[in-house]
Amino acid sequence: MIFPFTAIVNQDEMKTALILNVIDPSIGGLLIMGEKGTGKSTAVRALAELLPDIKVVQDCPFNCDPEGRLCSRCEELLKKDGQLKRAKKKMRVVELPLGVTEDRLVGTLDIEHALKKGEKRFEPGILAEANRNFLYVDEVNLLDDHIVDLLLDSAAMGVNTVEREGISFSHSARFILVGTMNPEEGDLRPQLLDRFGLCVQVTTIMEQDQRKEILKRKLEFDTNPVAFLKKWQRSQKELRERILKAKKILERIEPSDEIFQSIVEITSSLPLDGHRADIVMMKSLRVLTALRGSDTIEKGDIKEVAQFALRHRLKRLPFEDIRSKDEKLQTVLAGI
Amino acid sequence: MIFPFTAIVNQDEMKTALILNVIDPSIGGLLIMGEKGTGKSTAVRALAELLPDIKVVQDCPFNCDPEGRLCSRCEELLKKDGQLKRAKKKMRVVELPLGVTEDRLVGTLDIEHALKKGEKRFEPGILAEANRNFLYVDEVNLLDDHIVDLLLDSAAMGVNTVEREGISFSHSARFILVGTMNPEEGDLRPQLLDRFGLCVQVTTIMEQDQRKEILKRKLEFDTNPVAFLKKWQRSQKELRERILKAKKILERIEPSDEIFQSIVEITSSLPLDGHRADIVMMKSLRVLTALRGSDTIEKGDIKEVAQFALRHRLKRLPFEDIRSKDEKLQTVLAGI
Amino acid sequence: MIFPFTAIVNQDEMKTALILNVIDPSIGGLLIMGEKGTGKSTAVRALAELLPDIKVVQDCPFNCDPEGRLCSRCEELLKKDGQLKRAKKKMRVVELPLGVTEDRLVGTLDIEHALKKGEKRFEPGILAEANRNFLYVDEVNLLDDHIVDLLLDSAAMGVNTVEREGISFSHSARFILVGTMNPEEGDLRPQLLDRFGLCVQVTTIMEQDQRKEILKRKLEFDTNPVAFLKKWQRSQKELRERILKAKKILERIEPSDEIFQSIVEITSSLPLDGHRADIVMMKSLRVLTALRGSDTIEKGDIKEVAQFALRHRLKRLPFEDIRSKDEKLQTVLAGI
Amino acid sequence: MIFPFTAIVNQDEMKTALILNVIDPSIGGLLIMGEKGTGKSTAVRALAELLPDIKVVQDCPFNCDPEGRLCSRCEELLKKDGQLKRAKKKMRVVELPLGVTEDRLVGTLDIEHALKKGEKRFEPGILAEANRNFLYVDEVNLLDDHIVDLLLDSAAMGVNTVEREGISFSHSARFILVGTMNPEEGDLRPQLLDRFGLCVQVTTIMEQDQRKEILKRKLEFDTNPVAFLKKWQRSQKELRERILKAKKILERIEPSDEIFQSIVEITSSLPLDGHRADIVMMKSLRVLTALRGSDTIEKGDIKEVAQFALRHRLKRLPFEDIRSKDEKLQTVLAGI
Amino acid sequence: MIFPFTAIVNQDEMKTALILNVIDPSIGGLLIMGEKGTGKSTAVRALAELLPDIKVVQDCPFNCDPEGRLCSRCEELLKKDGQLKRAKKKMRVVELPLGVTEDRLVGTLDIEHALKKGEKRFEPGILAEANRNFLYVDEVNLLDDHIVDLLLDSAAMGVNTVEREGISFSHSARFILVGTMNPEEGDLRPQLLDRFGLCVQVTTIMEQDQRKEILKRKLEFDTNPVAFLKKWQRSQKELRERILKAKKILERIEPSDEIFQSIVEITSSLPLDGHRADIVMMKSLRVLTALRGSDTIEKGDIKEVAQFALRHRLKRLPFEDIRSKDEKLQTVLAGI
Amino acid sequence: MIFPFTAIVNQDEMKTALILNVIDPSIGGLLIMGEKGTGKSTAVRALAELLPDIKVVQDCPFNCDPEGRLCSRCEELLKKDGQLKRAKKKMRVVELPLGVTEDRLVGTLDIEHALKKGEKRFEPGILAEANRNFLYVDEVNLLDDHIVDLLLDSAAMGVNTVEREGISFSHSARFILVGTMNPEEGDLRPQLLDRFGLCVQVTTIMEQDQRKEILKRKLEFDTNPVAFLKKWQRSQKELRERILKAKKILERIEPSDEIFQSIVEITSSLPLDGHRADIVMMKSLRVLTALRGSDTIEKGDIKEVAQFALRHRLKRLPFEDIRSKDEKLQTVLAGI
Repeated sequence: MIFPFTAIVNQDEMKTALILNVIDPSIGGLLIMGEKGTGKSTAVRALAELLPDIKVVQDCPFNCDPEGRLCSRCEELLKKDGQLKRAKKKMRVVELPLGVTEDRLVGTLDIEHALKKGEKRFEPGILAEANRNFLYVDEVNLLDDHIVDLLLDSAAMGVNTVEREGISFSHSARFILVGTMNPEEGDLRPQLLDRFGLCVQVTTIMEQDQRKEILKRKLEFDTNPVAFLKKWQRSQKELRERILKAKKILERIEPSDEIFQSIVEITSSLPLDGHRADIVMMKSLRVLTALRGSDTIEKGDIKEVAQFALRHRLKRLPFEDIRSKDEKLQTVLAGI
Repeated sequence: MIFPFTAIVNQDEMKTALILNVIDPSIGGLLIMGEKGTGKSTAVRALAELLPDIKVVQDCPFNCDPEGRLCSRCEELLKKDGQLKRAKKKMRVVELPLGVTEDRLVGTLDIEHALKKGEKRFEPGILAEANRNFLYVDEVNLLDDHIVDLLLDSAAMGVNTVEREGISFSHSARFILVGTMNPEEGDLRPQLLDRFGLCVQVTTIMEQDQRKEILKRKLEFDTNPVAFLKKWQRSQKELRERILKAKKILERIEPSDEIFQSIVEITSSLPLDGHRADIVMMKSLRVLTALRGSDTIEKGDIKEVAQFALRHRLKRLPFEDIRSKDEKLQTVLAGI
Repeated sequence: MIFPFTAIVNQDEMKTALILNVIDPSIGGLLIMGEKGTGKSTAVRALAELLPDIKVVQDCPFNCDPEGRLCSRCEELLKKDGQLKRAKKKMRVVELPLGVTEDRLVGTLDIEHALKKGEKRFEPGILAEANRNFLYVDEVNLLDDHIVDLLLDSAAMGVNTVEREGISFSHSARFILVGTMNPEEGDLRPQLLDRFGLCVQVTTIMEQDQRKEILKRKLEFDTNPVAFLKKWQRSQKELRERILKAKKILERIEPSDEIFQSIVEITSSLPLDGHRADIVMMKSLRVLTALRGSDTIEKGDIKEVAQFALRHRLKRLPFEDIRSKDEKLQTVLAGI
Repeated sequence: MIFPFTAIVNQDEMKTALILNVIDPSIGGLLIMGEKGTGKSTAVRALAELLPDIKVVQDCPFNCDPEGRLCSRCEELLKKDGQLKRAKKKMRVVELPLGVTEDRLVGTLDIEHALKKGEKRFEPGILAEANRNFLYVDEVNLLDDHIVDLLLDSAAMGVNTVEREGISFSHSARFILVGTMNPEEGDLRPQLLDRFGLCVQVTTIMEQDQRKEILKRKLEFDTNPVAFLKKWQRSQKELRERILKAKKILERIEPSDEIFQSIVEITSSLPLDGHRADIVMMKSLRVLTALRGSDTIEKGDIKEVAQFALRHRLKRLPFEDIRSKDEKLQTVLAGI
Repeated sequence: MIFPFTAIVNQDEMKTALILNVIDPSIGGLLIMGEKGTGKSTAVRALAELLPDIKVVQDCPFNCDPEGRLCSRCEELLKKDGQLKRAKKKMRVVELPLGVTEDRLVGTLDIEHALKKGEKRFEPGILAEANRNFLYVDEVNLLDDHIVDLLLDSAAMGVNTVEREGISFSHSARFILVGTMNPEEGDLRPQLLDRFGLCVQVTTIMEQDQRKEILKRKLEFDTNPVAFLKKWQRSQKELRERILKAKKILERIEPSDEIFQSIVEITSSLPLDGHRADIVMMKSLRVLTALRGSDTIEKGDIKEVAQFALRHRLKRLPFEDIRSKDEKLQTVLAGI
Repeated sequence: MIFPFTAIVNQDEMKTALILNVIDPSIGGLLIMGEKGTGKSTAVRALAELLPDIKVVQDCPFNCDPEGRLCSRCEELLKKDGQLKRAKKKMRVVELPLGVTEDRLVGTLDIEHALKKGEKRFEPGILAEANRNFLYVDEVNLLDDHIVDLLLDSAAMGVNTVEREGISFSHSARFILVGTMNPEEGDLRPQLLDRFGLCVQVTTIMEQDQRKEILKRKLEFDTNPVAFLKKWQRSQKELRERILKAKKILERIEPSDEIFQSIVEITSSLPLDGHRADIVMMKSLRVLTALRGSDTIEKGDIKEVAQFALRHRLKRLPFEDIRSKDEKLQTVLAGI
């Protein structure tokens, strides 16, 4: 049984950033930085209960979107039957273990089937499960380099192509990457860092009343989880509905030129590589507005999304402290 | 034949910490730090005789809990028969050899069965044996990095998923991890360190009378083990009964708000990452109370469990001596 | 759906250098250096829509040129049938994933076919797909050393020879290599650097109006790609036609002796290894002239192509700044 | 043919320590440190001729003790036949080559048998041969780390468990480990060092008459080994009988409290890790007494066994010379 | 189509050294040192057209010399038929790719043949193709260490012995090794350096008229290779004939004692290891004389061959500049 | 064809040391240190023609001595037939390539035979060929560490035991190890260094007349090997006969006590590890005496053999020059 998302004490920034990704997956995932034991994994796993349904081809192990790019299996089926059966499926949080092998990640050949039936069949891997879902990597900075390369290749191309023993298979592999890391245990490769749309920082809560609340809720949950879940059922339902409503509002939000101007003013006055930050800020801003139930972007919200979208993209100059990067960001934001 | 737990001279802290884990496995295991030859392995192996029974699905090689998450095999069985046979089984201490291979740890495919019967069968590994048991790793700091990754993955997810030759299998893998290490022979990765609920330190006994007693008992046991075990039979039985009684008391202990308050006061005044220490302290405190036969937590006991629960979680600042960490802990505890 | 090439804001140097390679593949590819997020990948992928057709042997998986060197399969076919069927095929942009294996790159044996039919068949790899096409490597400086060796071998010999289990196969492997790299994330091996005919540098655009335009077009494309592509259809068509026209003009351009003289004056006054730069400059000059619709090389154009052709070939002396190399180049060019 | 043990000139400490292990294997083996060419290997190999018989299950390739833990094969046999045939077998000196593979050490599956008979059979490795015998490792400090791990695992658990292709087998693996090392060629891992019950140091003999005697005996043996062996037959026989007699005496030796007291006085006044040294000293003392034909331990003998048992267990403090460790030992022993 | 050898502008030293090896393969190959793009590869590949025929056993994949050591296959054939059919075959330039595998280099078993016909057949590798031919390694200093070992073994023994799955095969492997290297990209292992009979250095041509000529010829060749080859047909034929004539003259050249004396005077006054330089100088001198159409060695030619034969063999003392080695050589040569 | 041993100019020390090993293989091999091109390999290969016959079991691929330890195959044969056929075979010089694999060195299973006949057969490796022969390793200091371990294991045990796929085989592996090394290209592991009975140093000859003679003989041999071999036939025959005669004399040489005394006086006054040098000196002295046709050891010869036997065994103290070791040796020898 999973701890309810809404029962997590404080940590609002992390919770908001996760929900933004639920509403608009094109924001591109989230990196959560923070010490051990601050509830990072709890929050990501708790997200599962809040996720909406997606349309898929029925029984497709790769979660093919009937209106998008089809996997080799669905393509053959469509050719044969002239149409594809559709189904609804709840989005999931798929976990990537640190010790994952290449075969488990990208999938491999089903040898048993090949031997018995004499025909090739592809056994889907984690990238197949993760297609159109959340892919969660705990301690992402400790992931093996070779696995990171495979993840980056899939993320860059949106496709996973596997070749084994002269047989090849390919399917879409578009996932929302959520990673956690403890910065004390090693850095992240810059290419991987850049793949995360947003980034938040969580810290241990030192305020004693909140701390006591955390301990009480955890003990309560551990002692009698069924009763605890029932107590939080209502707030969970409210949040699920708010998310669905926001997805609808989102379609009709059109940013004004003033908003465009404000964003490029900020990004062009900061040491950022390229233009990815601009688009992430704009998208986050739209979703945040929708989440609040409004369809007009408030200029004041720019500060909030700038925190999520820019923090991990600011270039650190040699000998420069990480703290001074944050100060620069605050100075620019204060000027808005 | 195994040396009796109760015949171990002194080393009370280690013995208590082991028994706390027997009574409440959710405390999360124990790390025993100390020099060679101080009886660490002897104590852990001796624990086996004191362990209570658990309810399992009959003949399940993964020790499935009939009321918990079932393995793939039990799930199929339940679907087929509509019910599962139950059995009782004694908890065990499963050992993890340093030279263990990935296949031996997580399990692999039974090739012979596959070739003969033409059907897939999973050959359980050490993680299967360890499910709902103690998993003991001697010299845990010398374990191969890849094996540590696999252990951490299982510990984090509570599940072991194996994929071999296109066939996949998964079963619960919840174990009480007990490790020993000699700090002179290398450090422990911080992620692994944090997985141990409690931590104790054992040292060589320098007091000559105790030392003579240790030597005498060991020589006696080596020369005539049968006679020696008989001599200690009674004290072993007493301890087993005390453990069973404590398990029952535990269910009715409810901590007062004052206890909650005392714990967060301690943890928020120490350099600790996250909130895991709070819950471990609270759980240990409840078990210690139950072990003493009482159902009311004594504030004075907080000091004792703080030793176990906080020692390995205090952050060491750069250039700071490990000794000064202990002093800080003592100062805070003295203030209670 | 792919962002249209002509909708890319600014970045003219990169766009010209890519088109030069489309018109005359013997120029030898392009290296694009620049920070993350500056649209390098977008531009290379967008190129696909502009590519012309090539003549191939029908159904040949290696894109054999019916008038060039044939692969082992086509040679057998020609021997058997006395002639080869021809077909037209659009040139493609083939991508090389960072985590590519040797088998996937060079191809391997089709085991299934061998087992079923009892005859050897070669399963083409990426080098086969890339024959006579663009081969695109994102983050080329992070490619595994062993893969770089295989790429260099093919590039040097123009042939890919594979030997597996005592069976050997060979086919042409002439591709236009396009790589991107972020110089902050590591250098390129000199042998690989030298394989790129041209080199351009792209930077983040800091001008706010251009930046706003980039953001608007991207948001527009992401929100409604179909409408966006329609809007840019016309400019795309114009560029495709200009390319075809240039290919025809190219055949009749004959450089004057004055042009030969100017080129060797420049190259012999700069610290360059060998004579490769001379021929690349001359070829680029011819194509640039053709792209402008003229058949007489203008001396003034030498400066422009010198930028592309010489930048990555200037030797850096020890302790010399990369900037001073550029200054030397500018001084020599100013003197023309 | 093997050089006779009794024809070895001088080196009494090494010879005594070897014989102590023959009489009481629970002493735990011997580490011989010294330069090349000092007869270390000669002595260990020569030991073979002096070894007594052990009782085994007839034809068991794992030397199962009919009264001890049985191997999987003997267990099945006992179940089937209700009893096990017994036999006598001479103890052996089994050698572990430096280049040994994991399969050769722990054993593997007999593939030929599996293919022919369709049933699993385990092919015993060196650990099987070494069960209840001497296991000799020349240059033990050069052994591969992975092999050391496997040795330590077996030594710690007393069992060798092998899992290959889904088939598992286990048998007792209790051996007397004898290693030689030249300290100039590298150190020994502390965990391995601690596994050796005793430790002696041998040096090149500089006294010319002894040296001439060594040379003469070696030349005599090399020129005519048969004659040489005959010459030493008698002294070999005498030593064998002395060993058998000592094994009998050993059972009736009971140490006085004064002896217990003396041992802990020594060990508690020296920088030793844990309590293993105490028990090794006591056991060696009993065997030495038996070897002398007496059944009363002489306090004066403590000094002699302390040399063997403590030398490699004294902790060296940082910056402390190995010599000063020996001085400390001598000072304490002088005080007895 | 390949650029004609005689159309290469300048670079006379390299061209002469290559031709010396064509006339007398026992000179032992050539190492060409120089920057990228100086036509090193072009020259070696162009050599192919100038090579004479050799006598081989008909259809032997190892180019067996009917009068020399036979391969296992030819030996069996000779035993069976009593004689061997002969044929003529043009010498070739075989290329060794940098990414070559051990199997591709030394050859391997033809599995398909073994499975189908049930008999062992060896699939020849590059060493088989290279037997009695030129073996060309571009960037020889970047070759994998393991491949270098295999090359050195073959070069030292003149034989390639392969053992795979219990089947062994051996054939002559005498090749003329030609390597190129850019000294800026790493050194050569001394054992490999010593295997090259001669060594030349090529540099970028800075003279503008020559440079223009190079560019013009290259552009002409690239634009219309057929016409270009026709233009150079005649000079190619002349060189081929000169080579054949020189091979005949060579047999009747006998060096005078004065020439012997001059050579050892030079070599014994220079820091050279061993006597290999003496014999290479003498052989090169004889071939150079023959190439000039004379049969009397001119003392004046010694200087020219000394350049080729000694340059890479002079020992560099520690802290000594490579330039000072050349000065020493020039001083000694000036003294002749 | 091989250059004749007696035609080698000068290098007497190396030639004598090789012949000593031919006469008495128990001396234990030879290490030849020296620069490239000094004829080291030529001398070892030339040795082949001088080697005497040995008695073997007919057709045994392991060269079993009918009176010594038999291989598994010969043992079975003897059991079956009651006797073994004998044959004579010339001793050989077997070469160990640097790139040798473990399978090629120790032998492996003959898979083809196993599949066809359904029975296990061992395919002998180089250690089988080398049994009772010379084993020659060029550049022994560059040998792979793992191969060195396997060589040392065989050398130490005199037996090669191979285990593959559950099948095991063993045979004698006693070889005379001859290695060459260029000390400039790396050191030798001390354990391997100690395995060589003798050690000589060869240097480039600087005397011009000798040098001219070397060049003339080499050119003569290369130009017309048949004529050259004929010219040296007689001196080769004389040396072969001298060797046979020496083997007979050897049996009756008995060293006087004075000789024993002189040897230990030398060895005990030098920094030598162990007693191996004493026995090698004594054996070499006896063979040298026999080679001179005498049966009485001359005290004056001690100096000569001391050079061979002690040079590589003297311990170098830290910071001590290798030269000073030689001086110490000369001082001691001068005192005889």
